Amino acid sequence: MPSIVRACVVGASGYTGGEILRYLAFHPNIEVTMATSREYVGLPIHYVHLNLRGFYKGLKFEPLDLDKIGSKCDIVFLSVPHGVSLELVPKLLEMGLRVLDLSADYRLKNPEDYKRWYNREHPHPDLLAKAVYGLPELHRDEIRNARLVAVPGCNATSSILAAAPLVKYKLVDLDHIVIDVKVGSSEAGSKAYSGSHHPERENAIRPYDPTGHRHVAEIEQELSLLANRAIRVAFVPHAVSAIRGSLATVHAWLNEGVDEKAVVRAFTTFYAKEPFVRIVRSGLLKYPDPKYVIGSNFADVSFAVDNRVNRVATFAAIDNLGKGSAGQAVQDMNIMLGFEETLGLLIPPLKPA
Amino acid sequence: MPSIVRACVVGASGYTGGEILRYLAFHPNIEVTMATSREYVGLPIHYVHLNLRGFYKGLKFEPLDLDKIGSKCDIVFLSVPHGVSLELVPKLLEMGLRVLDLSADYRLKNPEDYKRWYNREHPHPDLLAKAVYGLPELHRDEIRNARLVAVPGCNATSSILAAAPLVKYKLVDLDHIVIDVKVGSSEAGSKAYSGSHHPERENAIRPYDPTGHRHVAEIEQELSLLANRAIRVAFVPHAVSAIRGSLATVHAWLNEGVDEKAVVRAFTTFYAKEPFVRIVRSGLLKYPDPKYVIGSNFADVSFAVDNRVNRVATFAAIDNLGKGSAGQAVQDMNIMLGFEETLGLLIPPLKPA
Amino acid sequence: MPSIVRACVVGASGYTGGEILRYLAFHPNIEVTMATSREYVGLPIHYVHLNLRGFYKGLKFEPLDLDKIGSKCDIVFLSVPHGVSLELVPKLLEMGLRVLDLSADYRLKNPEDYKRWYNREHPHPDLLAKAVYGLPELHRDEIRNARLVAVPGCNATSSILAAAPLVKYKLVDLDHIVIDVKVGSSEAGSKAYSGSHHPERENAIRPYDPTGHRHVAEIEQELSLLANRAIRVAFVPHAVSAIRGSLATVHAWLNEGVDEKAVVRAFTTFYAKEPFVRIVRSGLLKYPDPKYVIGSNFADVSFAVDNRVNRVATFAAIDNLGKGSAGQAVQDMNIMLGFEETLGLLIPPLKPA
Amino acid sequence: MPSIVRACVVGASGYTGGEILRYLAFHPNIEVTMATSREYVGLPIHYVHLNLRGFYKGLKFEPLDLDKIGSKCDIVFLSVPHGVSLELVPKLLEMGLRVLDLSADYRLKNPEDYKRWYNREHPHPDLLAKAVYGLPELHRDEIRNARLVAVPGCNATSSILAAAPLVKYKLVDLDHIVIDVKVGSSEAGSKAYSGSHHPERENAIRPYDPTGHRHVAEIEQELSLLANRAIRVAFVPHAVSAIRGSLATVHAWLNEGVDEKAVVRAFTTFYAKEPFVRIVRSGLLKYPDPKYVIGSNFADVSFAVDNRVNRVATFAAIDNLGKGSAGQAVQDMNIMLGFEETLGLLIPPLKPA
Repeated sequence: MPSIVRACVVGASGYTGGEILRYLAFHPNIEVTMATSREYVGLPIHYVHLNLRGFYKGLKFEPLDLDKIGSKCDIVFLSVPHGVSLELVPKLLEMGLRVLDLSADYRLKNPEDYKRWYNREHPHPDLLAKAVYGLPELHRDEIRNARLVAVPGCNATSSILAAAPLVKYKLVDLDHIVIDVKVGSSEAGSKAYSGSHHPERENAIRPYDPTGHRHVAEIEQELSLLANRAIRVAFVPHAVSAIRGSLATVHAWLNEGVDEKAVVRAFTTFYAKEPFVRIVRSGLLKYPDPKYVIGSNFADVSFAVDNRVNRVATFAAIDNLGKGSAGQAVQDMNIMLGFEETLGLLIPPLKPA
Repeated sequence: MPSIVRACVVGASGYTGGEILRYLAFHPNIEVTMATSREYVGLPIHYVHLNLRGFYKGLKFEPLDLDKIGSKCDIVFLSVPHGVSLELVPKLLEMGLRVLDLSADYRLKNPEDYKRWYNREHPHPDLLAKAVYGLPELHRDEIRNARLVAVPGCNATSSILAAAPLVKYKLVDLDHIVIDVKVGSSEAGSKAYSGSHHPERENAIRPYDPTGHRHVAEIEQELSLLANRAIRVAFVPHAVSAIRGSLATVHAWLNEGVDEKAVVRAFTTFYAKEPFVRIVRSGLLKYPDPKYVIGSNFADVSFAVDNRVNRVATFAAIDNLGKGSAGQAVQDMNIMLGFEETLGLLIPPLKPA
Repeated sequence: MPSIVRACVVGASGYTGGEILRYLAFHPNIEVTMATSREYVGLPIHYVHLNLRGFYKGLKFEPLDLDKIGSKCDIVFLSVPHGVSLELVPKLLEMGLRVLDLSADYRLKNPEDYKRWYNREHPHPDLLAKAVYGLPELHRDEIRNARLVAVPGCNATSSILAAAPLVKYKLVDLDHIVIDVKVGSSEAGSKAYSGSHHPERENAIRPYDPTGHRHVAEIEQELSLLANRAIRVAFVPHAVSAIRGSLATVHAWLNEGVDEKAVVRAFTTFYAKEPFVRIVRSGLLKYPDPKYVIGSNFADVSFAVDNRVNRVATFAAIDNLGKGSAGQAVQDMNIMLGFEETLGLLIPPLKPA
Repeated sequence: MPSIVRACVVGASGYTGGEILRYLAFHPNIEVTMATSREYVGLPIHYVHLNLRGFYKGLKFEPLDLDKIGSKCDIVFLSVPHGVSLELVPKLLEMGLRVLDLSADYRLKNPEDYKRWYNREHPHPDLLAKAVYGLPELHRDEIRNARLVAVPGCNATSSILAAAPLVKYKLVDLDHIVIDVKVGSSEAGSKAYSGSHHPERENAIRPYDPTGHRHVAEIEQELSLLANRAIRVAFVPHAVSAIRGSLATVHAWLNEGVDEKAVVRAFTTFYAKEPFVRIVRSGLLKYPDPKYVIGSNFADVSFAVDNRVNRVATFAAIDNLGKGSAGQAVQDMNIMLGFEETLGLLIPPLKPA
């Protein structure tokens, strides 16, 4: 790898695109040479991303031009709506580029699952096999050698990180796992819609998609892999009143003989060498709150054992635009490119945020 | 009953006390003749309750004086910290007053439960038997004849309302019930503390007391009564970023042969005649959100059946200061006094709020 | 007047329309017989106004049909976008109906002003003369006899109420008046747009239209009338992070010899008999905050005199959907119809809100 | 200067102390060797600053020990309540340390001013003369040689940055300047108090100290210096609903002959070489909003000229914990130490935030 890698962000005017630009603005080994947008062609980056005024001087939004990407870039971030990556990915791979796809298009390994959850045949099932699910805590080695990384969804990331140690070490009844997620408004992207209208969205405590949220597919895929058996979860996401942040609460019943020590051991073992997973065990707050990871790639995790009911609750808190998308994408990129995994990512979260 | 009943609010400077005053300000048959406060004696009501400027002219906060209450009032609302009601209640009852206690002191029927959850012997176990748990949807007839009503906690109210039809009609696996609650900041009362400091509390998505929240005791008591067997629940409350509102999400697995129709029937039957429970089945939102009950005594409930996993999620949304405390107390009072149950309570919630 | 008056709300699916419905739901002398909407024809009121579930049973949104309005209604509220009332008003008046127009179309008395601020000729300049600017504190007697009331804009209401006593009694330098307004997100209506997208609107502290906001025209018209000379103001509104609320801060320099007593006298005299203006002089907060008038038709006003710089700051806090539009419209209606002015409006604001 | 400078943060458990730690965590040339706190002695930094978990491993809060500071540190940040620095500063200077004082104790040059605004004699008036007001845009050269920098207050920073070009080039009537500030809740520090209680503080639009806010003293001092004549301002700060952010709106009347071009020229000239002041002239928003500088040391400034009234409104938006305190302190430190002024500070703000 050359010391400076040239990156393109496709769909750079949205929230995940903008956040990738924010992270890359202080990444020492990356030069962003292209940023595409359908709506803002010809305008400077800061026209849309008011936060980036003073950064990326000279860079303007360009139309999507594959040849140009091929000639000017080494790696591509796809921050596009679901469905758009389906055809972009094979073309970019063919041109020899590495691809980090932040859409859901290449996250499911099984074409049948894709069909069930997305109501269409996947046009490139062979690529599903080659794509790597970009959660380093589960697939670091595969990411290292991947040409195509499918960056996980934000609620899937928090859910999997909260559940993984329980499932991996089979500490709980795998047939009765509930995942209740609470997430901020930026999760739905940068386009205004009736449900995102401030007077309607602020103060919301609102369940949505309680029986068919698509992130369930990823969560069940990854937890099943960990358990080496099929797992189905009861999953309900809730829109709550914050801009950033996703908290997953996993509720489960402990298997016989499993005590708090076993849970402690599972978490500390599972996350022992993870640079971005922080186990919360002491401090002014005893449990994770996404407030304290805002602006970063960290995931704060923890758990509580209830001996009275023989149950456990586990928690994972992330910034949906950090570890939940853009930050994780940059972490994946570092791994793919053989950089130090934490390069450009060790900026602490804000507080208060 | 005389057409005008004289009421006293003890602890009138707090949030539930203030909200009772707000409701009673437009109740046609109630005159508030006393309002007590330790901190604001001698000051007018609106000194603390800025919203009430122009109301209750002439009324001032007074010290707690039982004799005076006895001579000036017919009914007493106790909006006091847990523990304070323990000794107040028997004295007020002895004076022939009716009592609505918004604290937790008389909510549990079983003295053993009280001891387990509150770490002390209850000094008046006999009164526990006489107290009625003030959830009209479960105990309307008993409330009618009660001298002492223990008004339920806010998170207990939303939890029980969401779970009751499932439990009553035994539609779900009663051994695997999860209740995940999200609640606004006013739930913790009017006293500032480090966790309520705006920069720390705003944007929070924060689990608390995930293994021992005291509202569990009420919830299990009432659900066990409904099921006629012991029920234990997995309960985790979360502080989210709103001032008012409590949403309970109940996650459960359906018994064999139970389908969506059965769930619909359970909810419509259970709440058929309830004036304050609104079943949400259509509209711009398909599921309840406390946003749309703010300022009122309404509870919006609904459910979603997931055939894939054979599970159900049910929801109840309340204003924690409405159906979650002050509104419910006034509803209880109407029932106790033989008034129309909805008297003074049919003010629609705010929107947007 | 008959004891029950039949009302129609045109544009009933928006925020001001919905709030009029909320107020009228507990008005003892009004029956809402029609509610129109272009988008939701045939759907029940609560389909859109989730807060109103259980109210207005049987009432559905209808298309705008003037004949039907003429036959079913006595009074009409127009909650329509600016421009739409221009042609509706004369037709409704011709049919003998009384009209409360919440748009800006009939607020300016001078057709030249209308042209300057709205960039078009007013098609019915004669009606401008007959319309009454619906601020009871300034035009109560005219409202009493009006067939057409132009309900003031929210920021105009807070601005005028804060400035009026200073201007009326000529306490300040009339050539140097600054009005700095802060307003919540519901002010812009119920339609989502990029600026109202929750992630962009929440936490905003954002000046807008700092040199040409149209409410300036109303403010200057009314203050000029009060002063009996032309007045121009420096006006800047700011979008801040709340759903409801408008606070106007008026900054001015005191004329020679004017001291705090004179300011106190001006406010207490000017608002002596106003049922909805509350002068804030003591309490836990010394100055008004819209938080404490939310859900109501109250306006809290106050002032501070700075002897060091010989200046004064005055404040008026309203709920933009209360005294700033729907509440004020109902107050105007009560006056027009000869009802008690406060009828159906003496519900205290929420706290905390 | 050695390439690594050792820093101490006194009062490191508060918000400005924590934010300094956050900035210094990625400053390449600073090692934080000490962090003091009265309340948290012996606890790790992340116990309080949950965001900093994983950073500053091994560093614990220590009691304030001047000898230890002298032996372990080269430079000291004082993040202490007003009054505490008065006696600390001379001792630290005597020990040869450089001091950045974030309190108000050494900001005023004139001991008479200090007495008037802080109601006491300044115990070290000689040091007032030596202290430099740490606003690089006004005092860069003095900061370079300073041993003691008094870091400006947040509202003073936004106010001065918005007004400075107008005053410096005498474009406006200097006798009628209004500064209306809106600020988030973190401005008041990390200690909970009744006014910061979430249910009371959220949604606030609340004037405070409208006639005697102490930041007026700094603002008038600096503007008077710029104008070379005495300037008094009409200043009212408002608490609004955000955690971070301060927006100053300056309202003024243009001198004869001054047009928009002159204002443009004034701003572009005045801020031509400033690395942290960004003039907002185009983009999705035309005027500054602190939302888009959150987490950074940037100040976004702009203006609007109203020819109709011959007035101007100018705006400056900062993060009160960035350019309003901790960020500015680090910028000052870089200047004092001869580092690149932007070192460790070129992290873009968050969006959305």
